[in-house]
Amino acid sequence: MANEFISVDPYMRGRMNDAKSYATPYALDEVMTGGAVGRVLESRAEGLPVGAPVLHQQGWRDIAQGPATGFRLVQVVPGLPLSAYLGTLGLTGLTAYVGLLRIAGLKEGDTVFVSGAAGAVGSAVGQIARLKGASKVIGSAGSDEKVKLLTEKYGFDAAFNYKDAPVREQLAKVAPQGIDVYFDNVGGDHLEAALDAFNQGGRAALCGAISTYNATEPVPGPDNMGNMVTRSLKLQGFIVGDHAEHMTDFMTEMTGWIGERKIAMDETVIDGLDHAVEAFLELMRGANTGKMVVKL
Amino acid sequence: MANEFISVDPYMRGRMNDAKSYATPYALDEVMTGGAVGRVLESRAEGLPVGAPVLHQQGWRDIAQGPATGFRLVQVVPGLPLSAYLGTLGLTGLTAYVGLLRIAGLKEGDTVFVSGAAGAVGSAVGQIARLKGASKVIGSAGSDEKVKLLTEKYGFDAAFNYKDAPVREQLAKVAPQGIDVYFDNVGGDHLEAALDAFNQGGRAALCGAISTYNATEPVPGPDNMGNMVTRSLKLQGFIVGDHAEHMTDFMTEMTGWIGERKIAMDETVIDGLDHAVEAFLELMRGANTGKMVVKL
Repeated sequence: MANEFISVDPYMRGRMNDAKSYATPYALDEVMTGGAVGRVLESRAEGLPVGAPVLHQQGWRDIAQGPATGFRLVQVVPGLPLSAYLGTLGLTGLTAYVGLLRIAGLKEGDTVFVSGAAGAVGSAVGQIARLKGASKVIGSAGSDEKVKLLTEKYGFDAAFNYKDAPVREQLAKVAPQGIDVYFDNVGGDHLEAALDAFNQGGRAALCGAISTYNATEPVPGPDNMGNMVTRSLKLQGFIVGDHAEHMTDFMTEMTGWIGERKIAMDETVIDGLDHAVEAFLELMRGANTGKMVVKL
Repeated sequence: MANEFISVDPYMRGRMNDAKSYATPYALDEVMTGGAVGRVLESRAEGLPVGAPVLHQQGWRDIAQGPATGFRLVQVVPGLPLSAYLGTLGLTGLTAYVGLLRIAGLKEGDTVFVSGAAGAVGSAVGQIARLKGASKVIGSAGSDEKVKLLTEKYGFDAAFNYKDAPVREQLAKVAPQGIDVYFDNVGGDHLEAALDAFNQGGRAALCGAISTYNATEPVPGPDNMGNMVTRSLKLQGFIVGDHAEHMTDFMTEMTGWIGERKIAMDETVIDGLDHAVEAFLELMRGANTGKMVVKL
């Protein structure tokens, strides 16, 4: 099949380290694997006719080939590009859904804080939280444009630019009543701020720690871990691959929300496979809004 | 009623700070509340006859009085002092039981690490872990005598003195296969070491952080919080008061284990109410083995 879009994700940075993790480290000089969508060019498999849109994990290449089991037929949703299966309707959306609802256990009336909120996962988290009855949704992002997007487009109740002042101070200001759920894409000072702001019984889904991925020295952790005990807090790291059983529920709800225009998800599209590395570096710098993909 | 034993617990240190927590801070010049057992001196309540052994929360005083609802009749267990209701058969034992089984979700075959393992809660955790099918139980303590007690009396498979060398190094040495469950009574470098040693899906019950209670400056947190995501770890703080519904199961199992001599719990007994403050300071220094109580 011929790739049309490839997925560019923060977790790929982790795979560039040779460390104990859920995903095998990338080997040098091998193709970067990861999500990609395209159309069938040649096929001997029933159910995968030439021209059919398919999703696979063979990553950063223009032509992918292999046994039919490695390719999943997807349905084109009117009004959505095929790349939606890498973002809104793909593992990105599922990550937001599972992390917020299953790991952090969102309850109606919760105040929710999301870091990296203008990113692909973060923007989905904020909107799902609102749709599922959160009483207040707060986001942080790294530019004033993104902050504006959070409140004006994605329906966050409050948002701040984490570069303006310490996260601790800014979060305390916009959440004087405390927070109940934190969805962490960033780590570092954001997690520390959340631990300060948590109400009794607060829960965090830890999805990523992009602030620390390029660190060459150990990064000191939150200085307020004692709150974990005194406030009965829960922090839980997760990877979406362990929660594939929620895919059906997720697809049903998400396609419903998309159909009713209740959820908006952006993409940052970079043209050409030869710009994939550049796309990845831009992602690490936070230059993207929403899902970062490369179009072939 | 006349108190016979009063409970001296690490959580009391937390209540001496004026901070947001599950327990109201102690007010200056008021009696220290907390668990205590004794016998009824005078009563107008049915079911609480004079001489009956009772448990209450009025704490550090020689005579306690109040409505009958504040006193719980207990049964004297042959061979056990009444103080067992402050330790083995009381909130101390329940803390170990709930934390290990409900919060950390111990599974058969898990490797378990316990800090403060010669303390009242820690020694119970290690023994319950073994009784519930842990494949290996590791403990840390602050003296060679305590370390000896762990392996020779409480049935730990391995133990070390955390003052001998960095916890990280010592834990890695005794748990080359990693750990699955960590029961934290200590915080600080112990938690950091556990985060390094965790296998995929590791779980920690955070019960206390005695290493940080007297800190006057914020204490830097673990420098390896990134492992939370890459290894799908869970850290959960808890207080036993939120899990009182497990009291019946706990009492049934624990009295069974005691009857079959499958569990050993020690007490450090200090004589006289006027030595209660000294007992508390000794506890904070780690001078106790097992439950610290004051005998009146």
